Amino acid sequence: MSTTLLNSRDLEFLLYELLDTEALLNRPRYQDHSREVFNATLDTAKTISERYFANHNAKGDANEPHFDGKDIHIIPETKIAWDALAEAGFLSAHYDADEDGLQLPEIVLRASMAYFNAGNIASSGYPFLSIGAANLIHSFGSAEQKALFLPPMREGRFAGTMALTEPNQGSALADITTTAKPCADGSYLISGQKMYISGGDQNITENIVHMVLARIDGAPMGTKGISLFICPKFLVNPDGSLGERNDVALAGLLHKMGYRNTTSTVLNFGENGGAKAFLVGEPHKGLQYMFQMMNEARIGVGLGAAVLGYQGYIYSLNYAKERPQGRLPSNKDPKSAQINIIEHADVRRMLLAQKSYAEGALALCLYATSLYEDSRTADTENQRQQAFLLLDLITPIVKSWPSKYGLKANELAIQVLGGAGYIREYPVEQYYRDNRLNPIHEGTEAIHGIDILCRKVLLNNSAGLILFNEAVSATLSDASTYQDLKDLIQPVADGVQTLNTVTTTLLGNMAEHTDLSLANATIYLDLFGRVLMSWIWLKQAVCAARGLENTSVHEADKNFYMGKLQATRFYIQWELPEIGPQADLLCRFDDVPFKMQADWF
Amino acid sequence: MSTTLLNSRDLEFLLYELLDTEALLNRPRYQDHSREVFNATLDTAKTISERYFANHNAKGDANEPHFDGKDIHIIPETKIAWDALAEAGFLSAHYDADEDGLQLPEIVLRASMAYFNAGNIASSGYPFLSIGAANLIHSFGSAEQKALFLPPMREGRFAGTMALTEPNQGSALADITTTAKPCADGSYLISGQKMYISGGDQNITENIVHMVLARIDGAPMGTKGISLFICPKFLVNPDGSLGERNDVALAGLLHKMGYRNTTSTVLNFGENGGAKAFLVGEPHKGLQYMFQMMNEARIGVGLGAAVLGYQGYIYSLNYAKERPQGRLPSNKDPKSAQINIIEHADVRRMLLAQKSYAEGALALCLYATSLYEDSRTADTENQRQQAFLLLDLITPIVKSWPSKYGLKANELAIQVLGGAGYIREYPVEQYYRDNRLNPIHEGTEAIHGIDILCRKVLLNNSAGLILFNEAVSATLSDASTYQDLKDLIQPVADGVQTLNTVTTTLLGNMAEHTDLSLANATIYLDLFGRVLMSWIWLKQAVCAARGLENTSVHEADKNFYMGKLQATRFYIQWELPEIGPQADLLCRFDDVPFKMQADWF
Repeated sequence: MSTTLLNSRDLEFLLYELLDTEALLNRPRYQDHSREVFNATLDTAKTISERYFANHNAKGDANEPHFDGKDIHIIPETKIAWDALAEAGFLSAHYDADEDGLQLPEIVLRASMAYFNAGNIASSGYPFLSIGAANLIHSFGSAEQKALFLPPMREGRFAGTMALTEPNQGSALADITTTAKPCADGSYLISGQKMYISGGDQNITENIVHMVLARIDGAPMGTKGISLFICPKFLVNPDGSLGERNDVALAGLLHKMGYRNTTSTVLNFGENGGAKAFLVGEPHKGLQYMFQMMNEARIGVGLGAAVLGYQGYIYSLNYAKERPQGRLPSNKDPKSAQINIIEHADVRRMLLAQKSYAEGALALCLYATSLYEDSRTADTENQRQQAFLLLDLITPIVKSWPSKYGLKANELAIQVLGGAGYIREYPVEQYYRDNRLNPIHEGTEAIHGIDILCRKVLLNNSAGLILFNEAVSATLSDASTYQDLKDLIQPVADGVQTLNTVTTTLLGNMAEHTDLSLANATIYLDLFGRVLMSWIWLKQAVCAARGLENTSVHEADKNFYMGKLQATRFYIQWELPEIGPQADLLCRFDDVPFKMQADWF
Repeated sequence: MSTTLLNSRDLEFLLYELLDTEALLNRPRYQDHSREVFNATLDTAKTISERYFANHNAKGDANEPHFDGKDIHIIPETKIAWDALAEAGFLSAHYDADEDGLQLPEIVLRASMAYFNAGNIASSGYPFLSIGAANLIHSFGSAEQKALFLPPMREGRFAGTMALTEPNQGSALADITTTAKPCADGSYLISGQKMYISGGDQNITENIVHMVLARIDGAPMGTKGISLFICPKFLVNPDGSLGERNDVALAGLLHKMGYRNTTSTVLNFGENGGAKAFLVGEPHKGLQYMFQMMNEARIGVGLGAAVLGYQGYIYSLNYAKERPQGRLPSNKDPKSAQINIIEHADVRRMLLAQKSYAEGALALCLYATSLYEDSRTADTENQRQQAFLLLDLITPIVKSWPSKYGLKANELAIQVLGGAGYIREYPVEQYYRDNRLNPIHEGTEAIHGIDILCRKVLLNNSAGLILFNEAVSATLSDASTYQDLKDLIQPVADGVQTLNTVTTTLLGNMAEHTDLSLANATIYLDLFGRVLMSWIWLKQAVCAARGLENTSVHEADKNFYMGKLQATRFYIQWELPEIGPQADLLCRFDDVPFKMQADWF
């Protein structure tokens, strides 16, 4: 059984029915494009992914990168995939035409990236990080830095990384200790060790541009003393040619459970005096800059998690349609033919849950990307500002919800296959192992819980939350015109009300009892996610109901829309109600974990 | 950081405070034993496991068994572990003294097995299956079969397997097609293919005794035409010496995500005319006999899942106590020292959830074992019967709940470690991969959901459910005498009431709408599990409260009991309330998955 990459009908639905991507063509930046260009871009991504990424997904897992103490070895298919992606222009497609880009909208790139993720999440890790690193230089680098580093990064000769984590701090960025010593020529010498750096070394590109967080000598402690540096593996001469090897050494590789073909490295900076590096922007503003890359990466991680969930869903769905086993409980005749397992109610439950998680997560990530696009190219300053505020509010969920439920989907895909799901002869166990990374990197679930409750819902007098309420109201109003959706309106309306009540209750106590109010922030994150996702599903249901109004709708489309309606119903009737106990727990400021003592464990 | 096997204080609590194992000494079968003998047995198991099982847990994972087409290769530590376990008498310790056993109670054996599982779940798979196979022959075999096969199985010269599954049926045992052709000498010739047979081949023992389900030529279709056979890898001469190689061939190994050092095999029976086999008991009663082994195995699978959850809990707990990172949200001073992550509320939540799952699951499995013991050796026929009925009712939960929540515990252990949790340099990711098998084998979650709702709650006029209600009432009464437990009584009482209401509602519709009534049986299983586990936790809390009454209680014991109370509180306040939405869903006969159409996906 070969693996289909995503579902092109669903992607079309998300881009053109849910999100109205075609309306972007009215914006000056995209006026020379067309829906055909968007679709041709997606087709190219799909073809490249099928041919050059999916081909070595299992092979890269079974033959992970290794380091012999001198050289790093990665299966050669990885470089071929990288080159194909770069050559097709995907590393620079979102840049303006006068920057040698294709001036394509962000959402077309994200959807393309979804295809690469679907083919091979690990091999697509390299371009994912490189695009983020280049964007960071593009936003905050000097003219010289841009001129020197961006062309080779866009062409795929250089790759990029984000070098934040150190052995003694993971989530606590405030405590990084890597230092940067100023040199007479304006450059810096970096010393310190970074860990879990994805793509921190490889044999794919001729150079690697590390975006490194470090403290300039004498900088204040905490987050306000962190600066951002460009620190290349090989120095680059003014004419763009490679200079000498910089003082950055691969100390070793880490051996992950999944996601194996992306190297995870320990890097030593400055073992021989210091790694030459170049300050990006102003001193001590590094974390602020890095947040651009992190926010981008957070949508990217959410998308990757969604797509892994999606691939497991597709595989288990096809398996369930073809695998005969057992009979309905009401059929006691052992001589009757077995039915395909998709006829069993519990298998349908597992498939429907996967559908609601995977398609829902993909919809969420593309919706977030549309907000990102709007924050940059919407017609009015007010629209841009609103999109920014709403995206800023939901980014913790865009990262965390797909990570949690994409993994859950993969767990269910294994269960649908049964014993076959547990063996490496089938692909679903790899999706599960790959996806387990996503609730960890780019901020653990707990970090995002604290971020949304302690910062995001408060910012700008809760402007984001107000916008979210307005957006849901608009959808409820749309839904009310469809008879099929009538019973779904009240639960979503109640859900938002619950979210508002819980938020007010928690915030009301925050100043006085900060630690207790934040103790259950992870539960708050999940509650908010459930409410947000019931809305994302209701929005899809409205589009499906609209599609079904068309009396000449094709049979395949009719089935597709019916599936969207049933998945919405599943999400709202099966998943949303869990906010009941969650809200109780939050509103009573439950202190059971909070008061648990270390000695009692 | 070395890995501690289980927690001996907790095991002592479970055996002697929760379950009163010492009372077994009053039964004639155990009158020559003592608590010291029980403890010495456990100490031996712990020592053997530390020395011979835990030593190659990671190695067996990294160097899984392989088959070169002729020979099978398994790391040699596996045989050394097997021999050590056999030599210490653990393969026969539960047999009567006049059968060369140690006449030890089942619970001492299970607790010993928990130590072997904790050291190495995969290597302990071989004895686990062998003991079950021998028990089957012991219960249903002829005197000759017993004489021929049991001595070498008890001594560890022969191992055993259960050969049920075939490529075209996993859960649907009714459809097995392996055939058995009667021979003139009273033996049979078996032909067919079996798949996912654990330990189906290995180089550890000189012979392997397969317990095979097959259909005698002309047998009826369905479960009522299945017979049970002994089919050894090598035939055994009447004097016990090995005869010729039987017609059972290893077709290949399957490559699992975890649990790797247990071989998972495809076996071809009868490629050259038929594999010689010996009927156990009467024809067509094979499934009925096999249920003994399956029910034993179900407790064993639950125990293994519990123990894997336990090991991840212990490791992540120790890690959290030693790993400094970050500060409390209320502390904004970057110059202050970092705290150990156990001080973070969300880490405590993750540890407390693991504790409630892992310790709860271990308590459940040992409780189930005590029921098994009572069903055989309790003083009166009535007591034996009641124990049997209650065990029969809860066996689906004893298998499924630890499998589901032990895995969930391992997921949380990874999350506590963060990036370190995801790499093979730390042990928790292996526990997670190992444990993912448990919701699949010995009956998937769905199978057990249907089993409990469609059969177990109905049997003997719901005698099991009535006994369960009585048992809970007794605990509620005990709990009411402790001030500390006052607020926990009503939620558990309400939980049982909810379970009863849901059960009555579903059963009331079963005859008329069988398929719909069973459609959400997996949710019913989880709801029942939550109610049962809140009771298991309340029972533990009563024992802890009793322990705390002792005014001269040691500080370490006081902390231990406080931990039990807090974990009970966590389970009842955080986990039990989810039965609310579950009961709503079940009682409205939710039909969203049931009505989902294959074409709509």
